[in-house]
Amino acid sequence: MNVSGRAFRTIWPGADGSSVEIIDQTRLPHEFVVARLESLGDAAHAIRAMQVRGAPLIGAAAAYGLWLALRADPSDVGLREASSALIETRPTAVNLRWAIERMTAWLKPLRPSERAAAAHARAAQICEEDVAINMGIGGAGLPLIRAAAAKKAPGATVNVLTHCNAGWLATVDVGTATAPIYAAHDAGVPIHVWVDETRPRNQGASLTAWELLNHGVAHTVISDNAGGHLMQRGQVDLVIVGTDRTTATGDVCNKIGTYLKALAARDNGVPFYAAVPSPSIDWRVRDGVREIPIENRSPREVTHLAGRLPDGRLATILITPEGSGAANPAFDVTPARLVTGLITERGVAEASEAGLKKLFPS
Amino acid sequence: MNVSGRAFRTIWPGADGSSVEIIDQTRLPHEFVVARLESLGDAAHAIRAMQVRGAPLIGAAAAYGLWLALRADPSDVGLREASSALIETRPTAVNLRWAIERMTAWLKPLRPSERAAAAHARAAQICEEDVAINMGIGGAGLPLIRAAAAKKAPGATVNVLTHCNAGWLATVDVGTATAPIYAAHDAGVPIHVWVDETRPRNQGASLTAWELLNHGVAHTVISDNAGGHLMQRGQVDLVIVGTDRTTATGDVCNKIGTYLKALAARDNGVPFYAAVPSPSIDWRVRDGVREIPIENRSPREVTHLAGRLPDGRLATILITPEGSGAANPAFDVTPARLVTGLITERGVAEASEAGLKKLFPS
Repeated sequence: MNVSGRAFRTIWPGADGSSVEIIDQTRLPHEFVVARLESLGDAAHAIRAMQVRGAPLIGAAAAYGLWLALRADPSDVGLREASSALIETRPTAVNLRWAIERMTAWLKPLRPSERAAAAHARAAQICEEDVAINMGIGGAGLPLIRAAAAKKAPGATVNVLTHCNAGWLATVDVGTATAPIYAAHDAGVPIHVWVDETRPRNQGASLTAWELLNHGVAHTVISDNAGGHLMQRGQVDLVIVGTDRTTATGDVCNKIGTYLKALAARDNGVPFYAAVPSPSIDWRVRDGVREIPIENRSPREVTHLAGRLPDGRLATILITPEGSGAANPAFDVTPARLVTGLITERGVAEASEAGLKKLFPS
Repeated sequence: MNVSGRAFRTIWPGADGSSVEIIDQTRLPHEFVVARLESLGDAAHAIRAMQVRGAPLIGAAAAYGLWLALRADPSDVGLREASSALIETRPTAVNLRWAIERMTAWLKPLRPSERAAAAHARAAQICEEDVAINMGIGGAGLPLIRAAAAKKAPGATVNVLTHCNAGWLATVDVGTATAPIYAAHDAGVPIHVWVDETRPRNQGASLTAWELLNHGVAHTVISDNAGGHLMQRGQVDLVIVGTDRTTATGDVCNKIGTYLKALAARDNGVPFYAAVPSPSIDWRVRDGVREIPIENRSPREVTHLAGRLPDGRLATILITPEGSGAANPAFDVTPARLVTGLITERGVAEASEAGLKKLFPS
């Protein structure tokens, strides 16, 4: 999507043919910095330090990381060590482990001399597949926004509320929850986005706001507390969120606080959609609330916050009393009963086993 | 309540007989500073700069401010000018205007020479009445916490969730939502409080956490997004919040985000109570969602945040992109249908006109 009028992805092969470039997301929204990855170490650091984040983008970065590693050492030992190093960058990211193991198994039978080129081709393919999925979600979601527009006065702005960042910065491009929003914007539908700041890591305030601002989509940042009130006042036409994992029965695991917005949407008759790329469907899980383990992240994310000082420097401040503890569950589960529909790359599914099976029969 | 083992109120007459002392709440939670008010200007500044906040405490500070003004100029002109100056400190605080106008009307018939002493006596009386109301709420709410304890294994900790600061720092002492919590703690009931940080002004993270820490009550700060998840997991036994205004029919207007917690409580069978001192009941309003105007505060409260730098200095940081706007509705309304009960100084009322009338018949 656009940054200062120029199209970017979050990751791309360097023009020198021997590096990968990324947007360093730890510097957003205050600084736009492109970082160059030239080695396995660079790629592992980028994932570990969250210069890249979001399951699709992490997968792409890890695939390019394997390529960088195999350029230096394409031996069996090199492949095994690179694989381990990349898996260890985010120990709880099961998708990352699975993607790396699958790619390693695919590379291993190849001759060492062929491995680097094969890894590069596969990394590029992973990127294109991600973009294709997201374009599919955009196409499937656009009619929902058009339907919301049709219920309003001609030319009236459609107000979408979103939580966290399921935008292009979490993917290779386009994003998941943002895909229908960008599709509507590009199609000329007047649209405005309420951006939940999404404490504690503030991915909404720092990333979603930044990408909407740079692509030219009207938006307003709100505290996570405000969405229910806006729905009561008729100021939200639909909610679209992303998902980290969706169960076979349509329960949506997503960033902490999503569940509260789903409750408010239900209480006020506002449609609530999750954008669900099919790789995020976990067909083995049936009861999201009971079965999905929720990561407890560092209390420091609650007690401290980073931002820009008046003099332009970046700084981290303490916002709680010295001595008070904090808890930081990172995700919650929205039961399928609160979800109006799942926007997948194959169309909008009812949030149920039958609904998902209809679009994904095998 | 206690600070470092010593009992404090939020406001008290200075030992010199010619000043009033307050805790400067703008310095909390990082610095405990007592400020001395010696003039009308000092008192007006303390209210305007939110060194004191919370309707009961603002009322007490304004009453003492009138005393300070009348010590300097007890004439009719002096009384009128002091009254205007205090009302203008918080133009949207209708309670403040009403309290000052009532006190002014009561002082005016007195001889100028009697006015200062009368104002001082009335200010002290306002403080005592506030404490008495809050003690009443504590007494009425304690059985609710005991009932929650009785449903658990003997000796198990009762988990209360609260939002914003309806603690002793918002009143003269004891607090409203915290009154039952302190009563339970002091009675030896094992209790733990989930403290919503309460964006955007973070009164939970900065004030509620600070007062619980200093009084020795176990607590954990959480992002406003986390409460629903904790309720899903059975980690909240009851919710107690404060209120800025409660309608004659039991709708509860309180800090933005309260409504979302009430929805989650209902969805998970968790009792949801509001602590309602009777002066905060607005008998003229019947439909809170439709009739109560909601203050939109400065977007800067959303885009900027204050805290402590690693070197100990206090600083304010920008947390959104330069160029992204923000909206900041400050309160929301929780419909009576979501409220389990209203804890008043006369007992626990059903959240309905009949319930309130039973306790407040006239």
